[in-house]
Amino acid sequence: MLANPRSDRIQAVRALTKRSVRARTGRFVVEGPQGVREAVRHAPERVVDVYATVASARRYADDIIEPARAAGLYVHEATDEVVAAMGDADSPQGVLAVVSDASPSLDEVLAAEPGLLVLLAHVRDPGNLGTVIRAADAMGADAVLVSQSSVDVTSPKVVRSTAGSLFHLPIVRGLPVESTLHRLRAAGIRSLAADGHGTRQLPDVDLTGAHCWVMGNEAWGLSEELRAACDAVVRVPIHGPAESLNLAMAATICLYASADARHHGDTRDPTRGTDTA
Amino acid sequence: MLANPRSDRIQAVRALTKRSVRARTGRFVVEGPQGVREAVRHAPERVVDVYATVASARRYADDIIEPARAAGLYVHEATDEVVAAMGDADSPQGVLAVVSDASPSLDEVLAAEPGLLVLLAHVRDPGNLGTVIRAADAMGADAVLVSQSSVDVTSPKVVRSTAGSLFHLPIVRGLPVESTLHRLRAAGIRSLAADGHGTRQLPDVDLTGAHCWVMGNEAWGLSEELRAACDAVVRVPIHGPAESLNLAMAATICLYASADARHHGDTRDPTRGTDTA
Repeated sequence: MLANPRSDRIQAVRALTKRSVRARTGRFVVEGPQGVREAVRHAPERVVDVYATVASARRYADDIIEPARAAGLYVHEATDEVVAAMGDADSPQGVLAVVSDASPSLDEVLAAEPGLLVLLAHVRDPGNLGTVIRAADAMGADAVLVSQSSVDVTSPKVVRSTAGSLFHLPIVRGLPVESTLHRLRAAGIRSLAADGHGTRQLPDVDLTGAHCWVMGNEAWGLSEELRAACDAVVRVPIHGPAESLNLAMAATICLYASADARHHGDTRDPTRGTDTA
Repeated sequence: MLANPRSDRIQAVRALTKRSVRARTGRFVVEGPQGVREAVRHAPERVVDVYATVASARRYADDIIEPARAAGLYVHEATDEVVAAMGDADSPQGVLAVVSDASPSLDEVLAAEPGLLVLLAHVRDPGNLGTVIRAADAMGADAVLVSQSSVDVTSPKVVRSTAGSLFHLPIVRGLPVESTLHRLRAAGIRSLAADGHGTRQLPDVDLTGAHCWVMGNEAWGLSEELRAACDAVVRVPIHGPAESLNLAMAATICLYASADARHHGDTRDPTRGTDTA
């Protein structure tokens, strides 16, 4: 039983709240039962250690602790105070895991011939990034691509807001946006900028072929150059006096429309405009 | 120029961060240029006072200050410290307004023969409520209905996350869920529960007629009784290993699908199941 919140081990885990320490060690922390369960289930090879309070070890015996032990992982029991001290959450949930980082390359993702991707260009808000990863997972995207100068995917707030989706699909990081758009085009994947000033409306765009949604920064969107480098600029139609949708809402809607087209086929009224650029 | 952050006036505004004070005075605070601008534009009769720093008064002269004065509103210049002291935001944006609360009745909303509504049952997270109000606005909903024991619509976090949408459409509050469902049915409005365990998939549901999305609590969803009291229980199809979408994402997708059906008509492949309950 780990009982000393000031021990070196606990302090070393706590230090992973700092980006520089995560970068140096190649590790980060997943807090709460949902995230830890998905890590143990979907990426046990990345789990370094699991820490749980006595109450949590009992509560999550079947869906976290036993599967973790069966996968040969170390499960440490610790006091409530120790588990709280290791994490960053305002309301500690009694279980966390240290996992090793994994950043697959764009080459690996493209080699698998993806049908649906999302590229986040200079996204700064952790909640937005986490929500888009979660939406991409739910809508069956093959990977999420994250640009240079976006928020760090392994930061505690991003990890929390992905609700475990972080372990469900490849997340490629540190990409330069413009050359990534060239790579996508060379791979036969259409790039669709999602932008409130788009010239095409979402329901009119053919989403049955391989494509990648490109989402810009929360405040300033995508630059004119980047919009021009995409194959189409698409807007979600706004029907009320609202000026726009936020980034996470727009991405969620675009990814839903993609999933709908891919799984049901594009069987809408043929008199509606289609886009085959 | 208001310069004393401890003056009675400033303290009285600051006190509006408390729910009990808002309830007693019937007033609340809108912070930041987007929210204040939308209040001045769309609900000037509700604006009691506008406060702005010198820099903000200059910066937002055309889109907030002049329109406010033209509408006969009081605009007070105040120091940065005073504006920061009045509000709740971590990063004060130099402009805020005190507005009077307005809670239209369900009768008023139904009298206008609404085509698209959303009913939030026991929603507790301010960000979720704000995002759903914003999505409802953007997707052309006629009103948002909020149940008893949901988070207070006038709390600073909700107001902020609506990004001004709060002033674009009626928001009815304090509703008992079950009798509201009866009222909707009597008015010929179908109630569609959005629930991950729904028996119908969103793309297969006919959304061209008048309907109301019913969203449950973040953690426990809708009770079996409430689901049974709705005309259909609808799920957004999940295509990846993600377990579910969060409340705001699900509501955004459902409202998008409604707007799409209402504005483009239901022109999909007739071999797909339709729901005319």
